[in-house]
Amino acid sequence: MEEKHPQYGLIGQIVAKPGQRAALAAILTENTRRMPGNFAYIVGEDASNPDALWVVELWADRAAHAASLALPQVRVAIAKGRPLIAEFGTRAEFKPVANAGA
Amino acid sequence: MEEKHPQYGLIGQIVAKPGQRAALAAILTENTRRMPGNFAYIVGEDASNPDALWVVELWADRAAHAASLALPQVRVAIAKGRPLIAEFGTRAEFKPVANAGA
Repeated sequence: MEEKHPQYGLIGQIVAKPGQRAALAAILTENTRRMPGNFAYIVGEDASNPDALWVVELWADRAAHAASLALPQVRVAIAKGRPLIAEFGTRAEFKPVANAGA
Repeated sequence: MEEKHPQYGLIGQIVAKPGQRAALAAILTENTRRMPGNFAYIVGEDASNPDALWVVELWADRAAHAASLALPQVRVAIAKGRPLIAEFGTRAEFKPVANAGA
């Protein structure tokens, strides 16, 4: 990439209430497009837990992620998604290594 | 994306031997470019463990990942990287949700 590299990454596992994973995944994917400073927002269905999702996020920096929480679309996602969440699992912050990626 | 979506994802934490994280990250990033069926290969430095890396991979399907292990460049990465690894931590397989991403 010629553009700025992401400097901040998040990995998180979210466990939905039984039967709510697909609904939660839809909320997360529909409300996280074109966020300022966001390079990637990957949502995946855990292969070993039918209720769990993994979310991987790449951001320009920590401040861009923090600022995203105030975006109307993200506030909508939080409001709609929270009732569908049973618990949060593994969570990690990381610094992306420059030049990684296919 | 108009092209095929990735159908298989991996998240893994790798703990390097003390002081070897940067060397291991370099090996991983330098030997994982342009692999057939690979959509993303993200390497990140764990913010809470100075020896740990996170690797997030997106693949066309499980077979593409399996096939990659036989690529010369990946065999080089495994041979060079293995002596630098102390242990493997969290590992998860996931199915990427279509249309996710910035």
